[in-house]
Amino acid sequence: MEGREYRSIWYEPAVDQVRIIDQARLPHHFEIRTLATLTEACEAIRAMRVRGAPLIGVTAAFGVYLALRENPAALGEAVSQLQATRPTAVNLRWALDRTARALAREPSDSIAARALQFAIEMADADSACCEAIGEHGSLLLERLWRGKTNQGHPLQVLTHCNAGALATVGWGTALAVIFKVAKKGMPLHVWVDETRPRNQGAALTCWELRRAGIEHSLIVDSAAGHVLSRGMVDVCITGSDRVSAAGDVCNKIGTYPLALAARDNQVPFYAALPVSTIDFDWPSMESPIPIEERGAGEVSMASGIGADGGEIAIRQYPESSPIRNFAFDVTPARLVSGIVTEHGVIDANGESLAELAGG
Amino acid sequence: MEGREYRSIWYEPAVDQVRIIDQARLPHHFEIRTLATLTEACEAIRAMRVRGAPLIGVTAAFGVYLALRENPAALGEAVSQLQATRPTAVNLRWALDRTARALAREPSDSIAARALQFAIEMADADSACCEAIGEHGSLLLERLWRGKTNQGHPLQVLTHCNAGALATVGWGTALAVIFKVAKKGMPLHVWVDETRPRNQGAALTCWELRRAGIEHSLIVDSAAGHVLSRGMVDVCITGSDRVSAAGDVCNKIGTYPLALAARDNQVPFYAALPVSTIDFDWPSMESPIPIEERGAGEVSMASGIGADGGEIAIRQYPESSPIRNFAFDVTPARLVSGIVTEHGVIDANGESLAELAGG
Repeated sequence: MEGREYRSIWYEPAVDQVRIIDQARLPHHFEIRTLATLTEACEAIRAMRVRGAPLIGVTAAFGVYLALRENPAALGEAVSQLQATRPTAVNLRWALDRTARALAREPSDSIAARALQFAIEMADADSACCEAIGEHGSLLLERLWRGKTNQGHPLQVLTHCNAGALATVGWGTALAVIFKVAKKGMPLHVWVDETRPRNQGAALTCWELRRAGIEHSLIVDSAAGHVLSRGMVDVCITGSDRVSAAGDVCNKIGTYPLALAARDNQVPFYAALPVSTIDFDWPSMESPIPIEERGAGEVSMASGIGADGGEIAIRQYPESSPIRNFAFDVTPARLVSGIVTEHGVIDANGESLAELAGG
Repeated sequence: MEGREYRSIWYEPAVDQVRIIDQARLPHHFEIRTLATLTEACEAIRAMRVRGAPLIGVTAAFGVYLALRENPAALGEAVSQLQATRPTAVNLRWALDRTARALAREPSDSIAARALQFAIEMADADSACCEAIGEHGSLLLERLWRGKTNQGHPLQVLTHCNAGALATVGWGTALAVIFKVAKKGMPLHVWVDETRPRNQGAALTCWELRRAGIEHSLIVDSAAGHVLSRGMVDVCITGSDRVSAAGDVCNKIGTYPLALAARDNQVPFYAALPVSTIDFDWPSMESPIPIEERGAGEVSMASGIGADGGEIAIRQYPESSPIRNFAFDVTPARLVSGIVTEHGVIDANGESLAELAGG
């Protein structure tokens, strides 16, 4: 982990083992976990030991390998068990479909080896894509840095949620940009939004920045407006779950008010994402997409370390008040300064996105 | 409590007792506590069993009575002990100065009775002021309601933090408006922001709305933008800690991004406050005021009910990432649709505020 780019999932050839960072143990404990069987791969997805669309997909591909290693005839069973872990995850279905197609005509004496190769390729491709996003974004931030008048201060970046290596296989999207900027030696300070209710900023993004030795400060989500208004932010950058053909950015709840506050203070706001995130079937936010509502417990319960050092959950608020837990919001393209992809930075409008798709 | 307007502090003449709602026990337990001595009044302020500027001031006035009831010569000692509980609270000093002045020439055989009368008058005046704010604001919301095209739906109000009876003596400011609207029988639904990091929305505002039987839903702070963007809010209303002579509103962190989201969706945003909150020595936000930064523990720790039913505190995030905990932000007057005071609703600009001060 230390001193090299880390991944959230990887294969150890010397011992024929698939390993993950157990994200359910973060931020209080850093534990590497071996996935030895299909059952363990399914459990890791279900228990959110791995999270983030690309990572879930790659974990499923490795899960297929683990199943075939034991039983070369288990392809169909493995795919259906893995799919059942998160029935609505689009990326999981996509990864499993691709894996199943790739292995469909493979003879049984080579199917496990081919599945392993396929999973490794999928992981490598995801990591390379994220690294390219980071590279393009870092050029952008370098330009911002050179344009800054007060170069005695570090470049101040604000991010929301976790769009880091833990949400992908390696590098991340928004954090890939930050990692690349840090590697180039630019002085950097990152404002990390807590990201209620699941606290991915406080728990995961802070953890990744600590590991990378990048200076950062945690703030509550609603403090982003204040630090922006006081000139303490040079650029905002987040990931995205889905981008419309017009450049509207669906992302973790709270991204839209952040983009509003950035615009009100003339601070650029970028979304960083692989081109696969652009949904050309979604014309624009004029056609509203359904926004997932999650359980009330994410808001009313909290977990952490108790007095005896063990990890426990507590009820913060009584059950008697109804809770609406919207998971995402949509930031209109007009508030997005640009979209950072593995192919470069483009404007957030239909024309630029169509060009990217065509090219 | 049930069936009558409740207060956060009151005097029971039949038994000569000062009583408070113990806010440190909310939202999990509703406990009424008797303050029998000066020491108990000081402890209640220090332990935040009472909170909110007006309520702290009135508690101090009752604390002076409790001291003089035991020893008519204790005025100076009582004032200095009470002032020391929250040395930087402006309203506390103001209340104690007024009390000391009122009692300065009172003979010792009547000083305790006069102190009690003074405290009761201060409490009544605060409650009456808040009720007037509520009345003026309710007329405003009534007009909004009559202008609504979809009167099949309730009037949707969004509020941030706690500006209720628990922050004042009775009624509150923003919540006074909501209570008055509810009393008039208008169908109403209130969106309550959680209000990180101290969670006053989730813990206190939800509690007050439950007691009053007003329909409401809790959301995380960063979800306000989403509900505004989906047409689920008709009006936003908050309290304020300090208003500039130009109408800029300093209030709980998160008010500024909320006002931005309201404006972006053509939803009016009002601040409700007593005229005493307007600081004519603060010309405008062009002269930035210092923003209090509070301890990291408010963000990194959480408290609630554990598995055994007892109330406990846990550490949510490791101490290794720095936390900046800004307590307030400033909403520019240009985003404020109006200011609701005990004298009526006025525009948020220097001219209207000066007129109010002159009148």
